[in-house]
Amino acid sequence: MPHRYFIEDLKADDTACSVYLTGDEAYHLAVVMRAKRGERVTLCDGKGSDFDCVVENADKDSVFLTINSIYKSVSEPSIRVILYVGYPKQDKLEMIIQKATELGACEIVPFFSRYCVAAPKNEDKKNERYNRIALEAAKQSGRGVIPKVQMPLTYDEMLKSAAQSDAAFFCYEAQKGESPLHSQLTDGIKTVAIVTGSEGGFSPDEAQKAADEGLLLTGLGARILRCETAPLAALAAVMTLTGNLQ
Amino acid sequence: MPHRYFIEDLKADDTACSVYLTGDEAYHLAVVMRAKRGERVTLCDGKGSDFDCVVENADKDSVFLTINSIYKSVSEPSIRVILYVGYPKQDKLEMIIQKATELGACEIVPFFSRYCVAAPKNEDKKNERYNRIALEAAKQSGRGVIPKVQMPLTYDEMLKSAAQSDAAFFCYEAQKGESPLHSQLTDGIKTVAIVTGSEGGFSPDEAQKAADEGLLLTGLGARILRCETAPLAALAAVMTLTGNLQ
Repeated sequence: MPHRYFIEDLKADDTACSVYLTGDEAYHLAVVMRAKRGERVTLCDGKGSDFDCVVENADKDSVFLTINSIYKSVSEPSIRVILYVGYPKQDKLEMIIQKATELGACEIVPFFSRYCVAAPKNEDKKNERYNRIALEAAKQSGRGVIPKVQMPLTYDEMLKSAAQSDAAFFCYEAQKGESPLHSQLTDGIKTVAIVTGSEGGFSPDEAQKAADEGLLLTGLGARILRCETAPLAALAAVMTLTGNLQ
Repeated sequence: MPHRYFIEDLKADDTACSVYLTGDEAYHLAVVMRAKRGERVTLCDGKGSDFDCVVENADKDSVFLTINSIYKSVSEPSIRVILYVGYPKQDKLEMIIQKATELGACEIVPFFSRYCVAAPKNEDKKNERYNRIALEAAKQSGRGVIPKVQMPLTYDEMLKSAAQSDAAFFCYEAQKGESPLHSQLTDGIKTVAIVTGSEGGFSPDEAQKAADEGLLLTGLGARILRCETAPLAALAAVMTLTGNLQ
């Protein structure tokens, strides 16, 4: 596929037929990729629309392109999955963000819980870094949407937020066999929340609170998954069951 | 669950009612975990049987235990999945081994292909290290079987080996929509091979050769997965579709 560049102020209903790419993306296209006049590239608005473009003029600060056509990105899954991940060590969260982006998550939300080892510190700065990782992974995997990594939530905020999805799965290792994913992913479901724990897992109280909020307590098999494996396994499972991994 | 220790010379039909644990596992149980007389632990033969034992005497070189009962490990999936992974950079292979063990793979087989960056070097020593990673992950995730990491195969050897499984999926990004996993995983299937590429992917020739050998060319969705993400996503998908991730 042709290289893809994300540009934030593009809009899918843009009636202008030309556009300037600036900043890092311009530098990458003009200098690293040595784009020439006449070359075709894909620009993405990061919200699900792709723009088929031709380079008219390229220098390191700014690339001028004409827009041939606008279409819905073909690589987006048919379902919106939001991952709520118990805040793990930073390198694990970064790995989760990268892989979850490849696997088609639309949003990643860290949260704090009783057994979290991580404590809030420089979260603004970390969040910037997390979103950069999501952007890079979105480019590399050909996503049409850049998943947003949210600022961390408290446990109660997370439950309230997750409960708003059409189906919210609370992955809890003591819950083998109950509410398996496949039994709940019926046709009408458009948004899915997946909640997984940090290194320390969840307390029985926390699981009870999740059930009280209407989340579905769900097991992920008889083996104990690490905190960075569980969200990716659950995401791959949801994508499989909704026909988005084939 | 109680701590689990692997002991290689245990046999499921062992009629002896006591056993000695030696080496690293004895040190771990006696010194690190400070096992006391009367404590219950689970020994595993690494081949799918668990032994419910009681500590009789523990010192750092040797722990003497009596066997209460022998049973089939409850954590093993109902299907044998062998992952054939195009040899990636070492840290990625190590990550694949760790996560694939958690997700229930029974065997991991690296292989060389045209676009592999990795070249064979000190493979004996690396293989020892890979198998140690599998052992550690098996203990941590509560597996009853320690997945074996094989020595790397050539491309042709890999195809011959994979073709012996009941179903062999060759994950190829150009193959969107054809032979999806779910359409092939019928009830009679007991062993599944999953073949995924290295960083450089497969050449069209290599894909053709795989098809000629009878492997099923299978897509993993519209997004491009990294070489370490693809085998884990495919494995999670197979486990989901066979009821082993619930």
